[in-house]
Amino acid sequence: MKKTTYTAEILKYIPFLYVIWSDELLSPSEISVFKKSIETDSISEAAKTTLKKWINAEESPLDETLVSWKKIINDSGLKLIESDAYPLTSFSMRLASNSQSTEIYDESLKYIEINLGIQPNHYHHLFDVKIETASSAAFYSAEKIDTLLKGEHAPYVDKFREKLNDPIFDFQIIRNKEEFRNHVLTQVKFLAKDGYGAMAYDNAYGGIGNMPTYASIFENLMYVDGSLTIKFGVQFGLFGGSIQNLGTKKHHDKYLKETGEANLLGCFAMTETRHGSNVRGVKTTATYVKETDSIVIETPGENDNKEYIGNALHAEMATVFAQLIVNGKNEGVHAILTRIRDKDGNLMPGVKVEDNGYKLGLNGVDNGKIWFSNVAVPRENLLNRYGDIDKDGNYTSPIENPNKRFFTMLGTLVGGRICVAKGALSGAKKALSIAVKYALQRRQFNSNEKIQEDLIMDYPTHQLRLIKPIAKSYVYHTVLDKLIKDYANSKEDGRREIETQAAALKASITWFSNQTIQECREACGGKGYLIENKIPHIKGDVDIFTTFEGDNTVLIQLAAKGILTNFKTEFNSDNFMDVLKYVGTQLSDRLTTINPIFTNKTDKEHLFDTEFHKEAFEYRTRRLTFSVASRVQKYIKKGIPSYQAFLKVQTHMVMLGKAYSEELSYNEFLNFVEKIQEEELRFLFKKLGALFALSEINHHAAWYLEHGYISANKSKAIRKQVERICSELRPHVNTLVDGFGIPKSCLKTPIL
Amino acid sequence: MKKTTYTAEILKYIPFLYVIWSDELLSPSEISVFKKSIETDSISEAAKTTLKKWINAEESPLDETLVSWKKIINDSGLKLIESDAYPLTSFSMRLASNSQSTEIYDESLKYIEINLGIQPNHYHHLFDVKIETASSAAFYSAEKIDTLLKGEHAPYVDKFREKLNDPIFDFQIIRNKEEFRNHVLTQVKFLAKDGYGAMAYDNAYGGIGNMPTYASIFENLMYVDGSLTIKFGVQFGLFGGSIQNLGTKKHHDKYLKETGEANLLGCFAMTETRHGSNVRGVKTTATYVKETDSIVIETPGENDNKEYIGNALHAEMATVFAQLIVNGKNEGVHAILTRIRDKDGNLMPGVKVEDNGYKLGLNGVDNGKIWFSNVAVPRENLLNRYGDIDKDGNYTSPIENPNKRFFTMLGTLVGGRICVAKGALSGAKKALSIAVKYALQRRQFNSNEKIQEDLIMDYPTHQLRLIKPIAKSYVYHTVLDKLIKDYANSKEDGRREIETQAAALKASITWFSNQTIQECREACGGKGYLIENKIPHIKGDVDIFTTFEGDNTVLIQLAAKGILTNFKTEFNSDNFMDVLKYVGTQLSDRLTTINPIFTNKTDKEHLFDTEFHKEAFEYRTRRLTFSVASRVQKYIKKGIPSYQAFLKVQTHMVMLGKAYSEELSYNEFLNFVEKIQEEELRFLFKKLGALFALSEINHHAAWYLEHGYISANKSKAIRKQVERICSELRPHVNTLVDGFGIPKSCLKTPIL
Repeated sequence: MKKTTYTAEILKYIPFLYVIWSDELLSPSEISVFKKSIETDSISEAAKTTLKKWINAEESPLDETLVSWKKIINDSGLKLIESDAYPLTSFSMRLASNSQSTEIYDESLKYIEINLGIQPNHYHHLFDVKIETASSAAFYSAEKIDTLLKGEHAPYVDKFREKLNDPIFDFQIIRNKEEFRNHVLTQVKFLAKDGYGAMAYDNAYGGIGNMPTYASIFENLMYVDGSLTIKFGVQFGLFGGSIQNLGTKKHHDKYLKETGEANLLGCFAMTETRHGSNVRGVKTTATYVKETDSIVIETPGENDNKEYIGNALHAEMATVFAQLIVNGKNEGVHAILTRIRDKDGNLMPGVKVEDNGYKLGLNGVDNGKIWFSNVAVPRENLLNRYGDIDKDGNYTSPIENPNKRFFTMLGTLVGGRICVAKGALSGAKKALSIAVKYALQRRQFNSNEKIQEDLIMDYPTHQLRLIKPIAKSYVYHTVLDKLIKDYANSKEDGRREIETQAAALKASITWFSNQTIQECREACGGKGYLIENKIPHIKGDVDIFTTFEGDNTVLIQLAAKGILTNFKTEFNSDNFMDVLKYVGTQLSDRLTTINPIFTNKTDKEHLFDTEFHKEAFEYRTRRLTFSVASRVQKYIKKGIPSYQAFLKVQTHMVMLGKAYSEELSYNEFLNFVEKIQEEELRFLFKKLGALFALSEINHHAAWYLEHGYISANKSKAIRKQVERICSELRPHVNTLVDGFGIPKSCLKTPIL
Repeated sequence: MKKTTYTAEILKYIPFLYVIWSDELLSPSEISVFKKSIETDSISEAAKTTLKKWINAEESPLDETLVSWKKIINDSGLKLIESDAYPLTSFSMRLASNSQSTEIYDESLKYIEINLGIQPNHYHHLFDVKIETASSAAFYSAEKIDTLLKGEHAPYVDKFREKLNDPIFDFQIIRNKEEFRNHVLTQVKFLAKDGYGAMAYDNAYGGIGNMPTYASIFENLMYVDGSLTIKFGVQFGLFGGSIQNLGTKKHHDKYLKETGEANLLGCFAMTETRHGSNVRGVKTTATYVKETDSIVIETPGENDNKEYIGNALHAEMATVFAQLIVNGKNEGVHAILTRIRDKDGNLMPGVKVEDNGYKLGLNGVDNGKIWFSNVAVPRENLLNRYGDIDKDGNYTSPIENPNKRFFTMLGTLVGGRICVAKGALSGAKKALSIAVKYALQRRQFNSNEKIQEDLIMDYPTHQLRLIKPIAKSYVYHTVLDKLIKDYANSKEDGRREIETQAAALKASITWFSNQTIQECREACGGKGYLIENKIPHIKGDVDIFTTFEGDNTVLIQLAAKGILTNFKTEFNSDNFMDVLKYVGTQLSDRLTTINPIFTNKTDKEHLFDTEFHKEAFEYRTRRLTFSVASRVQKYIKKGIPSYQAFLKVQTHMVMLGKAYSEELSYNEFLNFVEKIQEEELRFLFKKLGALFALSEINHHAAWYLEHGYISANKSKAIRKQVERICSELRPHVNTLVDGFGIPKSCLKTPIL
């Protein structure tokens, strides 16, 4: 072989050329990155000509040339230092200057390294040099990322996280439910003492009047334990929230402070055994008796009991949802504060409570069934913001329409639904953190030459499995944070779109969290199955998040109905005619067209283009809206009853609800990314966004292909790009999970 | 509206015509069914002409005509009796004859009803007549289906299921692990007394020498409890199986009977903390010491302990897998019977055992870690079927090649892997049975006109969610049954293909089972979360099946390697060069073509055609084999080390392994269906097969579309057909889950 000698200005590009040509063929956009870098470099024109010859996609360098490049690298005697900020740039510069140190990074090389996303795990196996390995790069700051995610809640969250280091929150395995529940109750009271329960209430009642901050606290609490989080949520969010949102000043004054301090324990008695999703059909009655000026709560049948009520074994009071009957007329479902135990914990006469027993998870929460038999409470106990009985015994309401009244009441509870999604997401983040950190220690299998086995984080299947959900977690974090703020700032009658968003996101995110936690369990192998390593509790606890605060399948259809009416009818309404009326007028506007330029584009630049992502998401939502509506109309025309027509398109509706939630999430994430000041972090977040978008488009590739929105080649290119981005993010994976800001104490497990 | 009067021979078709035109437009194949029926009917030519006019796809009947048909039906005063064997035929005949009874079913109508798969749930909302509802049809016999599934094991299985009614198997919630483990141990001993543990062993040792029957017992035991099943499997399958398969007559005579009777409890000590998937790398040593003619077992490092060993807290003996060192030479991994406790349960000197503690599930199984420090056992304790130390202290083996020896040993354990898949599948079947029976009672929501709410089983989303996995369960049942028989009949050196199949199916089926159990949990809402309703235990127990007896991701890649070499190299081998050698010679043969006639066909007949399904599955496997192999070759040519080249195609390998397992399952199912004698049952099973095939093709629609194998229209037609078949199976769903033959006692839960 003839000896090759290059000048330093060429030599510095050799490792890059070698890596690029050994890996995959250059795509046009990658060539353009390389070309741009060479053109702006201050090297000689002759060198530029030589280099350009080697980056011609039509004509790749000869195998002989590649072998000679490899030899130059291997013979250099240089070390590849993976922990360098720009390891390939640094290696190449040292090669060119024949020295062991680099002070400043060459801008041209750095430009290529960043923009092509070249990472040590892409090429270290190609270099036969000594490698100073780093299981993780220290390029980005986890703390800065965490600060971005905390946003304006930072001061409260930071203080709260410190609090979570208290030994009272140390991880324990308590198998006996009574013991576990008592322990959790102690923890709840501990937090209440510092005002954490009352945060969403006004100052007068010990809070700061900030629901979004309360939600952030809730989300962080989930890093400790699911049972604690749910018990906390039931007491302060559901019970306290019902007083705050459905009651009036007299109720606030009487109960809210005590509730926030956990001196008054309460539960939220809405669901019945036979009525879970269909709340409007609850059977419990609340009959006003004029003679005694009281309201009598009654469970009519054996199976009409309140079911699965959290805090039922500990609570003194219950917010009971019942059909309010005044002067013999059913005024619809209302909430009535009902004492179920005296101060000493004895059940009140006429109240029966049964333990729900052991569950798959959340065994620290005391769920129970409640029956009422002729239980009388004073008239004032009616939470009367939206419907009251005056002193003459007549029913009055500021909202004439009973439908609207009912849905307005339900609407005030949407904050809880958003919190549930946040809590599930915290579970996913915690599981991801454990699985990633384990994968950065655990080794299994090796190539024959190596003594040490490979880190399981270096397996592409493992990268796909964990890094895709990490990106998704970032996206979902930002959209939930935005949603809770919008909710807090909304007025009662401007809430329909927010309700739709909350329903869609609650369903999508709790499903996502469960899948992710399952992946994490499997990714940790048998170790993930041991309770001491914390994933089993997360898994068991988060499981039910897909069901409570609204069954996911029901919610996603409600969301679809919201979309079909462009958020114009009452949310939660099961009156299909409203939807039809709207759909009838809208159909013609909703015809969609495809951007033909996008169909075949497969270059990297385009695949990373947020305009492409946005359009793809939007097209899917619009198209599904149109096709669902058309199908329904067709059925109706044939005389099929509207209820049946909607049943026939049920699976279609579910698709629409999910598509909407993806589009919403991505768009909100883009808004978030726009506001990131620091360029490097913005770059990282953009990559996370691209991974989210391309994963989703890839997930729905069949649909996009069916509609001719993408070509077969593009579909393949997208799948390839998803794998590629995961490998590009691989060195930063530890930073990315640290960016979630989970307190160290919560991640302490024997495997880490 | 002018009054319409039809003759009886026309009248009998009116309900059919009305149903078909109100629902969806007739597809060409549906029209042909209708036409054929009319043509062969013995009605007048005039009637035939009139009827044919109405089944012209080009020109559907006028809305006015449809309305007049509806009126005829509604005015008839007849009842629609859903429990009739052919309800629409019966209704139509009564309409035509104007009488309330039908004795014999009209063949022409019956032909249409069966072949178009028309079910009461498709049309009962269209009829304004009195409906005698049936939540489930009694058309097929669950017992007959069960008999088909039990096959030749029926006598043993029937007796065993009776046994399972014993109060010792009553469902209990035992939260304390020691208590739970003792209870399970008692159950294991109870079963051993009747010879169930020994079934796979020879008569001389209390068995019937029938591994497949043992596997059926194992599969049925899973209906009782996961912990019991696993403890049973560890004792008789893993520990006993290691003696049976790796030992020789002296070991059998000494231990096998005692093991089968559970008088000698044992464990299977293979996995180590640092070596799970990569068994060949275990660190434990077994050094032959000539002076004492003994083998000394030693755990070299603190983290080289045996890990997660079932029965570790109860066992007297352990089959220890260790590097066997004879005369200073490492002869590779061998199994040595090692006493770890004396008869009184005290640990032997040098043995340390630690409890693994609480797990996500299987808390009735005592998993532990074991360390050995200078533990000597007699030379005879070496399980010496494949490698021995003679009395002169020299190592001998019937298998020269150490690689081949090791893989032959592992190969004898494949039966366990198949049992794991069977056990997981039982978990899915049990969860499906509970969810289906719940869905046939649980009502939620209704149309405004009705008082009673709808059964949740009547929601299309619910049908898709539960009926697709039911079909899949049937398919998987048959393939596993076939596989275990093939395995039992195989010789050591003819086992590579079976090993590949077992690996692929174990991974696919355990993943499937977990997803299904999760769907069932959600389908039961909050009730599914209560341990009393049994799904939580199934869920927690089956979870780990994706990890033990081979991590799924690792197994599916092993399977892919088997396919790439056409089952020619050692299974489990991590020598990639073997694969490459083979792939190099095969590539040219593996070019695939597409059947252009199939690409666009969307009629029902074609979509149900098993030839289409088979070809689609085969195309996918062949194409993936080809593309994986091509990619690997390309990388190798560029000088990328083979180990790295395989890493780069890892996700592609996983796709291939899964595709192979689907193809295999479907083909075996077709063989099974061919042998069904009774025509009606064969019809039902064919529908299950079609649902499996179309669901899978739909699941991979993106891939098929990318490759131009199916057109966009066909892809949509397939998705539609999947929903349609689910609705056609809806009336038989209870029969289908009863067909699994799960003992009633095992399904007894408060919600059913």
